[in-house]
Amino acid sequence: MSRLRLTITMSLDGYVAGPDQSLEEPLGRGGMRLHDWAFELAAWRAEHGLEGGETNASTEAIELSRENTGAAIMGRNMFGGGPGPWPDDPPWDGWWGDDPPFHHPVFVLTHHARPPLEMSGGTTFVFVTDGIEAALEQARAAAGGADISLAGGAATANQFLAAGLVDGMLISVAPVLLGSGERLFEGVDDLHGLRLERAISAPAATHLVFSR
Amino acid sequence: MSRLRLTITMSLDGYVAGPDQSLEEPLGRGGMRLHDWAFELAAWRAEHGLEGGETNASTEAIELSRENTGAAIMGRNMFGGGPGPWPDDPPWDGWWGDDPPFHHPVFVLTHHARPPLEMSGGTTFVFVTDGIEAALEQARAAAGGADISLAGGAATANQFLAAGLVDGMLISVAPVLLGSGERLFEGVDDLHGLRLERAISAPAATHLVFSR
Repeated sequence: MSRLRLTITMSLDGYVAGPDQSLEEPLGRGGMRLHDWAFELAAWRAEHGLEGGETNASTEAIELSRENTGAAIMGRNMFGGGPGPWPDDPPWDGWWGDDPPFHHPVFVLTHHARPPLEMSGGTTFVFVTDGIEAALEQARAAAGGADISLAGGAATANQFLAAGLVDGMLISVAPVLLGSGERLFEGVDDLHGLRLERAISAPAATHLVFSR
Repeated sequence: MSRLRLTITMSLDGYVAGPDQSLEEPLGRGGMRLHDWAFELAAWRAEHGLEGGETNASTEAIELSRENTGAAIMGRNMFGGGPGPWPDDPPWDGWWGDDPPFHHPVFVLTHHARPPLEMSGGTTFVFVTDGIEAALEQARAAAGGADISLAGGAATANQFLAAGLVDGMLISVAPVLLGSGERLFEGVDDLHGLRLERAISAPAATHLVFSR
């Protein structure tokens, strides 16, 4: 059975992005610090066309997040170029350049229709305007039996969590405080059977593995 | 040097107590679930005069929280019997019976003066009305070079954290959502040099060890 797996990094005070998200600071003020644990890893750098980096206990978290993944779902805010109707000149094709690191279909939740966008390396962005269940259905069909990665941001993750549609979570807790911003679990008060399986202790984050 | 060490259990969504705290539910609605990881441990049960229980990776967290401790500080809300002036008939001597599990002086932050309360087993509750720095100074003198345990609740922990007075944290993250209640790190946006040292992966909680 194809599972929907949330992979996200959260601050110690519960935020997955800081306040005042913008083109210059897509993760909001101070939000980039959340991902320091990933930026230093060879496994993450190789995916983003960068050399060097180290291998430590967090490498397993990167590997888990990529494992058996056939499609992804993300919110419009994470894809960027918004809010509002899609810009034309120049068009917005995501944060990741010509060859995004997904290599499978990515379903983007949006209120604004747009034809699918085929990139290099097997990534196609498909824009879904009829809600989370429709996005999940399309992603499941595209994944061909493999799992679906739920990437965020907070609003999208919280919608799927509140609806009980998430089958697994890899929550990387970064040892930083953001003080404000976008909160994971806002409006979610039930884990719908998700249980803590184990934690991975790493130098710059603690990775909590949940499944059901 | 005597260190001030915060020991507290937090839900995955950041709460250390649920909403509507009362005499019947001192940790608020649903808040008792936070401590399920401790209730099942032989190390915790023995301290509270109970038999049985198991030993697992969380046992180390209990041991760390007790290590080299000469005094404790807690808020009035955690001591109980409030809010407001102290009741007379019957008097409120805490939640823990005649022989509380501290066995050292405990400094209780309150707006209402009260003479020290000597219990069995070496626990004396001392009521401090002139703020967190005064409580820390008195606790440090009483601890005789050993560390001071900062027990909570949220308001007290957050005051000490915001003032940069905390030298170590053992945050036990319970894999539950409370949805509302008392939030750790409310009004705190800087860790003041506290760094993640390691995480202890246990069956029913993940224990994050911070020091500086």
